[in-house]
Order: sequence, then C-alpha cells, then structure tokens
Amino acid sequence: MNEISSPLSRAEAEALDQADPLATVRQAFHLPEGLIYLDGHSLGPATFAALARVRQSAEAEWSHGLIRSWNDAGWIDLPARVGGRIARLIGAQRAEVIVCDSVSVNLFKLASAALDLTGARTLLVEESEFPTDQYIAEGLARMTGARLVRVRDGAALAALRDERSVLLKSVVNYRSAEVTDIAAHEDAALESGGAVVWDLSHATGVLELNLSEAGARFATGCSYKFLNGGPGAPAFVYVRSDVTDEVGSPLSGWMGHAAPFAFEPTYEPQQGVGRFATGTPPIISLSALDAALEVFEHLDLALAAAKARRLGDMVVAAARRLGLACISPLDAAQRGGHVSLTHPDGYAVVQALIAEGVIVDFRAPDVMRFGLAPLYLRFVDVWNALAQLEAILVSRAWDRPRFKRRAAVT
Amino acid sequence: MNEISSPLSRAEAEALDQADPLATVRQAFHLPEGLIYLDGHSLGPATFAALARVRQSAEAEWSHGLIRSWNDAGWIDLPARVGGRIARLIGAQRAEVIVCDSVSVNLFKLASAALDLTGARTLLVEESEFPTDQYIAEGLARMTGARLVRVRDGAALAALRDERSVLLKSVVNYRSAEVTDIAAHEDAALESGGAVVWDLSHATGVLELNLSEAGARFATGCSYKFLNGGPGAPAFVYVRSDVTDEVGSPLSGWMGHAAPFAFEPTYEPQQGVGRFATGTPPIISLSALDAALEVFEHLDLALAAAKARRLGDMVVAAARRLGLACISPLDAAQRGGHVSLTHPDGYAVVQALIAEGVIVDFRAPDVMRFGLAPLYLRFVDVWNALAQLEAILVSRAWDRPRFKRRAAVT
Repeated sequence: MNEISSPLSRAEAEALDQADPLATVRQAFHLPEGLIYLDGHSLGPATFAALARVRQSAEAEWSHGLIRSWNDAGWIDLPARVGGRIARLIGAQRAEVIVCDSVSVNLFKLASAALDLTGARTLLVEESEFPTDQYIAEGLARMTGARLVRVRDGAALAALRDERSVLLKSVVNYRSAEVTDIAAHEDAALESGGAVVWDLSHATGVLELNLSEAGARFATGCSYKFLNGGPGAPAFVYVRSDVTDEVGSPLSGWMGHAAPFAFEPTYEPQQGVGRFATGTPPIISLSALDAALEVFEHLDLALAAAKARRLGDMVVAAARRLGLACISPLDAAQRGGHVSLTHPDGYAVVQALIAEGVIVDFRAPDVMRFGLAPLYLRFVDVWNALAQLEAILVSRAWDRPRFKRRAAVT
Repeated sequence: MNEISSPLSRAEAEALDQADPLATVRQAFHLPEGLIYLDGHSLGPATFAALARVRQSAEAEWSHGLIRSWNDAGWIDLPARVGGRIARLIGAQRAEVIVCDSVSVNLFKLASAALDLTGARTLLVEESEFPTDQYIAEGLARMTGARLVRVRDGAALAALRDERSVLLKSVVNYRSAEVTDIAAHEDAALESGGAVVWDLSHATGVLELNLSEAGARFATGCSYKFLNGGPGAPAFVYVRSDVTDEVGSPLSGWMGHAAPFAFEPTYEPQQGVGRFATGTPPIISLSALDAALEVFEHLDLALAAAKARRLGDMVVAAARRLGLACISPLDAAQRGGHVSLTHPDGYAVVQALIAEGVIVDFRAPDVMRFGLAPLYLRFVDVWNALAQLEAILVSRAWDRPRFKRRAAVT
C-alpha cells in the first residue's frame, strides 16, 4: 500500500493552509459559521456570486424585465453559455456542452442516441452504479426492447469488448469514489462497435477531466455537487462534435429545434449539442449555476484535484487510526473527491457528527461519505472534523436513540 | 354573433375596476411602474411572495441549511406539495398531481404511458397544436414505431373515435385561444379504446377546469404562464388515480422510485402519480412556484375566468373598431385567457406597443397576442393599452425600421 501523507497535528494542518495556493478561493463562498461542511459531493454550498445572481434574476430580470428578459437578459442563451463554462472543466470544446434537464433525463436521451448510433441492442450497467443510472437503463430497455445486462463491478470493460453494447457508467462511483479509466472503456467500446454514456456527477469540478483526449462521445453530469450550482440545478449534456449531427434526442422538444420561435410544425434539430435541449429551462436555478461557475473560470483544476487528494488522505489516515473500514481506494490517484468509511451504526455516527456541526452524509446500509471539496475546505477543517469523529467514536456519543431516528432523505 | 360587452369610456372601465371582486389580488404582485403587462399568458409576473421565497430558498435554505434542507426545509416534499396546490385549479385530487420536469418531457412520459395503457399504435396531433407537442409526438413515434398522424384543426375528435389512438392536445390553443371540449374528446377516446394527453399550459389558472368531471386521465401543463411560477418554473403531471398504478414512466428516474434513498438496484415505482417524477428538481425555481400559488389558494376561479372573458371582450371590441382581424373565438365562452389579432406588420406593431410600455407578444407570421390575466390587470389597463394600439395604428408609428428588427425570441 502507498504511503498516506497526512498532517500529524493541527499546527501542521494550519501550515498546509498557509501554503495552499487555493486558500483565497474560500472567500467566494458563503459558509455558515461554526459548521464544517464535508457534503459538497452531495450539495455544494452557495457562493456570494450565486446568491447575488439569484436575487438579480428574480428581482431585476423576472420582476422588472418580465418577458423581455428572454432577449435583454440573455435567458435564451443561458443553456449554451453555461454549457460553455462547464466545457473547460471536462476537457471539451465550448460548443460541445449544453445545460438542460436532470441527469436522469439526459441519461435517457444519450443512451437512446448511443443505441441508435451503434445499432447495439444491449444496455450495460455495473451492479454498483448509481441507482438512477440503473433505473433509466431499465426504462430505456423496456421501451426499446434492448436487453439490460447488469455486470459485477469492474466487469463492464470486458463486457463492452465482447459484445456491441451501450454502457452507462459513472466516472467516479458515488459510494466508493473509485475513478474509472475513460479511455480504456472507450477503446473497448470501439472494438465491438459499442459506446459509453458517462455520468460525471461526482467527478466534475474536482478532477481533471479530459473527455476529448479520452475519446468520450457522450456524457452528462449534475451541477449541484462540486460545481455548487444550487439544489437541483440543471444538468449538462456533452456530445462530441463529430458525432452530434449523426444522433438525435428522442425527447425532441422545441428548445432543441433549429428555430424554436419559428413555430414550424415539424421537428428540425439544431446543429450541434443544442439538439439535446428539450423544454424551457428553469431560469432562476440556471442563473445561480452560471454565477456559481465564476470561481472555476481561471482555476487550475490540477491544483484543486491535488488538494482534494490530500484532504482525502487525511480521512484515510484517520480511518486506519480509528479502525474504520475504508471502501474508497487508498491510492488517492484512483479516488474522486470523497472518501467513504463504513460503520455498522453509520447512520447514528453521521447524525452525531452533524449534531456537532460536522456535516457528512450517509448511504444505506452503512456508508459514511466525507466530501473533500477543495475550493472552500481548509486542511484544519478536515483536521477538526476528524478529531470530532474520533471523540464521538471513543465516547460512543452516537449510541443514543435520537441519532437513530431516520429522516426522509438520508 | 354574440353581443360583445365592453366599456365605452375610460370612466366606465374605472367603474368596472371599482366593482371588481378581484381588485385587491393585484396587491400581491410586483408590477413595474408605467408598464401595462398583457403577456401573462407567456410569462406571468412575480408576486411579492414568490420573490421573498426565492430569497429564502437561496439565502436561508441553501446557503445556511445546506444539505439539511432536504429534510428541514421540506425540499423533498415540494414536488407533491406544489402538485397538490395545482390540483384544485384543474379539478383533480391533491394526490393526482406532481410537479416535475418541463411540459415537453412530461408529454413524452404521458404519451408513452398512454400508448402502453391502450395498446394504440397511432399518435394524433392537430396541425395548429403547439410546436413542442408536435415535436415530442414525432420523437416518440420514431422511438416506438407508432404512426404519427397530423389532422387538421378540429378533426381530432372524429379521428379519435375512428381509430384507437393517443391524441396530444392543448385545452387552450396557443395561437387562437380556442377552448376544447375535454369531455367530448375523452368520450371519443373511450369509444375506440384510445386516450388523450392534455396540455393545460395556456389554460391553468385562467379557466375553471374540472379534469375529474370531464374524465381526463392524463395531463401536463406549464406553471410560468397564468400560474406566475417564474421563468421556466417546472411543469406538472396529472394522472387520474384509478389509472396511475397501471402505467409507468419510461423515464424511470430515482425520484419516481418507491424508496429513492434506499439505493436499490432495481426500479420499483412509487404508488400514485409520484412515479412520474424523474431527477432532482430545481429547488429554487420550484420554491418560487410554490409561493406564487399562494394567491390561488382561496381564489374563486369562476370569478377569475369571468373577468378574463370581459377583458378579452374589450380586445375583441377594439379589433372590430380598428378593422383588425381577430383569430380568437368571438364568443368569450369558447376562449381562454388571451385574444389574438393579426396584422400584416404584426411584429412591428408589437414592438411599437412595447416601446410605449404596453407589452403583448408576437407569434409568426402575423399574430399579436393580448394576454388578459385577471389577477393583476385592471379594466383601465386594458382600456389604456387599446387606446395606445389605436394611436399607433392611426399614426402608423409602427412603420419605422427600429420596430422591424427581429430579436432572438419573438
């Protein structure tokens, strides 16, 4: 096993913060006092810019501008403009990305397009894939008559090579945070004539992604995790430019039409990825996302990814010290922006942490996820959070009825 | 032709305002000074409650509450709760409506469900149907192998009776504002074993709808027109309770799962209309909608519909006086909440009106739409707008190059 580098004292953590080239980025975020937020892999916090933009889009653009804001405030261009901002973060050209709908809806569109493009009749998912990816594959299989094959974790690569099929796969697994080799899967897909639809939800904004270089053709991802777009902010669609005009969206709504305001009776898709847009986008949520992306505009993602790895190593080191099982890769190079530990009473431990102002999340049945968003977390924050975890475990503070009552969303 | 009742002077219009039982509802709206807004059929204005709620959802719930707001602020319940508010406005039970996605996406889900339920292999649309309804039918036909049949306006009723098919139809036509007889179409569909998917976009909030009584099984509609939910606010889905558990959504995303946070590998739909939810909803936009619906909570929709008809009659009377063709039904009982007039230079006339602070909209090639939202428009507003229209036509003020330059969104 690799050596895990982790500060050995709070003073060492503070020294890392002093040397951190990203330290000032934290100022862009509105972070509640007295809280250590290790849940940015689930819902990123607000930036001041996003909050200001929400107010502007509601109070100036909607309330004062009214219908005129479609032109005057540029609402009509937002899906492509925000897509263009995301493009740099995933290693795509600006014109290859559009923001629309949710990840679930976009997975359906892209997997359908990939089946059409390749002529494949098999949909593949791995057993540990995020549920909505599995469910959408199920729905699409039912509708198209394609066969849905669930393979065990890591087996998709061989399955893709063996049979022409369309794989839905997360680049970072939502539980383990394991990172997948995009290029290897694309190569395997090319061998059989299949394709992959990538889910970048847990990867975007915390890893250096280069879809172009890896040969990826289809991807979607959500924008409310490491991109901090706000709760339920719309997702994005990437389709490689040489493929777009060969494929279409089965959800051929008017916003994907070549001339939406010509009100023509028949559907004529836009050139480019814009054809994957569907209906009218939720402008206020989309505007928040646009502003949230400002912190990424000149950011060196390599620095962000490196910091996330170091913060993650601190959690891995603590797990070892505390005797907790870690289901994430110990090698930081194989890991996304979160680290998952297990504990038989994980739910209660998480509740006890939250009660102490350390927010992490829980995934049934026993997974505690620690999100290491590098733009606003300090080394000392993670140090303090882990000290709190240790105190809770040592004192068994989690073993109280009030920490065991389940909430609707866990 | 029926007698059109319209005030004959500004003083008469003012008297109608004084007697208007809805006059005080206007106070709930933030309306820009010096503007007469006759475009509420396209994008409704903001209420003070909606603006306050946007701020609350961004600044308190997202920024301070962070991930905890899924439980603590009730985000997880919003789609069903807001759906329940809309239910009363369309004559449905609270549990029959959920808010999710856009109208385009929902039309796809519902038409697919209706094909499955009925075994029909034909999709029907009328030629004058709103473009996205036609485009979605095209996409669904392509995907399922169903036959898409476009029939001329008004011919769907007979076509439905003749052949088992699924019709996508607006209750209020977006151009003409003509109202359709829901019950008659449902009866025709039952005769052949087909079904209708209703698009309530231009109808909800301005007509007394009673889907239950009319026997409607499937409907969707947008929430940013007469419901004033904000730009691109999410749409709603209605499925009659006795049908829901027999049908499924092809977009089987995790938010429609019986236990979304159990993270089960296979899809198990929720009981009831919740199964038509897909991905994570845009919470800030959805929260604005929730608050916007407060003005409807104790509103007598019969009064609102009656006022919209009287305001519409004023436009019809003016059209007759000014020699403009009216493509909306002259009989107010057959008309939704807008009136459409045509003019060969309609685009320029609309721009000239906007320049004078009267906002109406234009639909290619020559249609000027006047929206008569009854909750915030006064009779005197419509009087003044029509006086402005008359002045522009008499002086040919629209005949200037600057009024003829097309914007991206018309």
